Amino acid sequence: MKLARFGPQGAERPAVLDQGEVYDLGGLTADVDGAFLASGGIERARTALAQRRLPVLPQQARSRVGAPVARPSAVVCVGMNYAEHAAESGSRPPSTPILFLKTPNTVVGPDDPVAIPHGSERTDWEVELGVVIGKRAYRLASAEQSMEHVAGFVIGNDVSERRHQLEESGGQWSKGKCAPGFMPTGPWLVTPDEVDHTQLRLRSWVNGEPRQDSTTADMVFGVEYLVWHISTYLALEPGDLVMTGTPQGVALSGRFPYLRPDDVVELEIEGLGRQRQRFVAGEGE
Amino acid sequence: MKLARFGPQGAERPAVLDQGEVYDLGGLTADVDGAFLASGGIERARTALAQRRLPVLPQQARSRVGAPVARPSAVVCVGMNYAEHAAESGSRPPSTPILFLKTPNTVVGPDDPVAIPHGSERTDWEVELGVVIGKRAYRLASAEQSMEHVAGFVIGNDVSERRHQLEESGGQWSKGKCAPGFMPTGPWLVTPDEVDHTQLRLRSWVNGEPRQDSTTADMVFGVEYLVWHISTYLALEPGDLVMTGTPQGVALSGRFPYLRPDDVVELEIEGLGRQRQRFVAGEGE
Repeated sequence: MKLARFGPQGAERPAVLDQGEVYDLGGLTADVDGAFLASGGIERARTALAQRRLPVLPQQARSRVGAPVARPSAVVCVGMNYAEHAAESGSRPPSTPILFLKTPNTVVGPDDPVAIPHGSERTDWEVELGVVIGKRAYRLASAEQSMEHVAGFVIGNDVSERRHQLEESGGQWSKGKCAPGFMPTGPWLVTPDEVDHTQLRLRSWVNGEPRQDSTTADMVFGVEYLVWHISTYLALEPGDLVMTGTPQGVALSGRFPYLRPDDVVELEIEGLGRQRQRFVAGEGE
Repeated sequence: MKLARFGPQGAERPAVLDQGEVYDLGGLTADVDGAFLASGGIERARTALAQRRLPVLPQQARSRVGAPVARPSAVVCVGMNYAEHAAESGSRPPSTPILFLKTPNTVVGPDDPVAIPHGSERTDWEVELGVVIGKRAYRLASAEQSMEHVAGFVIGNDVSERRHQLEESGGQWSKGKCAPGFMPTGPWLVTPDEVDHTQLRLRSWVNGEPRQDSTTADMVFGVEYLVWHISTYLALEPGDLVMTGTPQGVALSGRFPYLRPDDVVELEIEGLGRQRQRFVAGEGE
C-alpha cells in the first residue's frame, strides 16, 4: 500500500493510493504520523480501502504533495553506507555505521523548491532509501526483529552543504545538513510488502543529466542491520525517519559541479516514486 | 518568572512558581510547549498571575517534576564551548561553534533516574546552561537580535557515553548522546529577566563530591552569539533547546571515574535550580 499527504505545507490531508486512484484518509485519521502508525493505522487504512469505504480525494486537493509522514521526532542518518561513495568522499567504508542527525524541520515535500543557503557554494544532492519507523525500537534483540518496527519506505534527498558540514563545525556534520528544506521526502510511504528493499535501483539527475545510479544491494549495512544497530544506541520512535546513506555520484566527488540557483534535481527509487526539486537562491528571513 | 511541569512523564501539568507557591496553569494552556511560547503564553501567564486568577496546584499533583518544556522539535548542542573543557578533552578551543544534535526523546525531568546503557563503561555528566527558543529564529541579522527569540533558560545534563560518542561512529558524536533519559532538563524554565545569563555559576557533584565548578562567563561563545550563529545554518523553532556546552570537570578528563549504577549526580546553576539523578543499570526493553 502507498500512503501520501496532499495539500499546503502544515495542512496536508492524508490519502492512500490504489490502482491509479487517490482516496481520502481524512475520515480515518487527522494525519499520517507516529501515533497513526503506532496504533495500527496502516491496517485500518487497508481494511477501509478493501471495504471501499474511502472517498476519492478531489483533484483540487492534490495541488501539492507533502512529505508522507508528518512531524518525525527524529531524522537519523547513516553516513558512508555505500563503499564507492565513501571512496569518492576520501574515506574507506566504515567498520560500523556512522550516525548523524538532521533536525525534523528539514522535512518537506518531494517537489518543493529548496533554497540554497545564503552564500553557499557547495550545496549537494544525495538520493537515499528512507525507513519509516512504525513501532518504537530500543535494544532490539537482533536484526531479524527490525522489520516488525518498520512501517515502510520512502525516497529522500539528504541535501547537504559541504563547507558547513565538513569545515565549519569541528568535523560534526549536522551544521551542513539542517537548512530549511534540506530533507525532501516522498511522494509515498510504501509498505514493505510492495518492494524488495534489499535490491532497489536508486538514481539521481541534475538538469536531466545522470548523477547517481546504484542499488540498495550495494549498501555496506542493510536496513535490518541498521535498525537493530541504531536501536542499541537510541530509541527510534514511531514516525521517525532513518536515512540509509547515499551511493556515489554526488558533487563532493569532484566529478560534478555543486548546485546553483535554477538547477533541477530529480531522484528516483524503484517502487518508491520520483522527486523533482528546483533549487533557488536563499534569501534572508 | 519560573514555569514548570509536574506529574507523570507524558502527562505533566503546566505550572508557574511565584514566591514559594506553585500555581496551576492548566486553565490557561494544555502544556508549556513551542506553540504556547510562540503565542505569547509567558505574558498570558504573567498577567493571570498578577491578577490572581491561577489556583494553587495541589501538593499531590507535584509528585514528579517534568522537563519544563514539552516536545522540543530539536535539541541543538554546542561542543567544546569552555576552553578548559576543550583542553581536558584533548582539544584546543574551537574557532567557530561546534554543533551536534540529540534526539528530543532524550529529554526527561531533572530528577528522573537515568539508565546507564547496557555494557557502557564510560557514561559521563555535563552540566550546561540551556536556552529555550520562544520565537522561530532563522538567519538573524545580528547577535543583538538573539534575545528576542529566547523564552528563557534551563539547567540540563548533557549525559554522554564516551565510547559511543568518540569511538563507534566515525567521529560523529550523536551516537553517544541519545540514549533514553540522556537529557535531564529543568526543574524550571526561567525567563531572561530573572537571571544574568552571562555570569551564572554552574556546578556538578557525584555522590556529593564536587566535579564541575565554573561560570557561564567562561564560555568561548556566549548565548547571543550562539543563537545568531546557529540561526545562520538552521531554523530554531519555538520550544527548541540549545545546550551551550559544559565546563571542565567531567570524567572524560581522566581525573574522575565514569558513572556506575547507584551513583547520584547533582547539578546546579545559579538561579535555575538543581537536579539530582540516580544512575541505574540499563536493562533490555
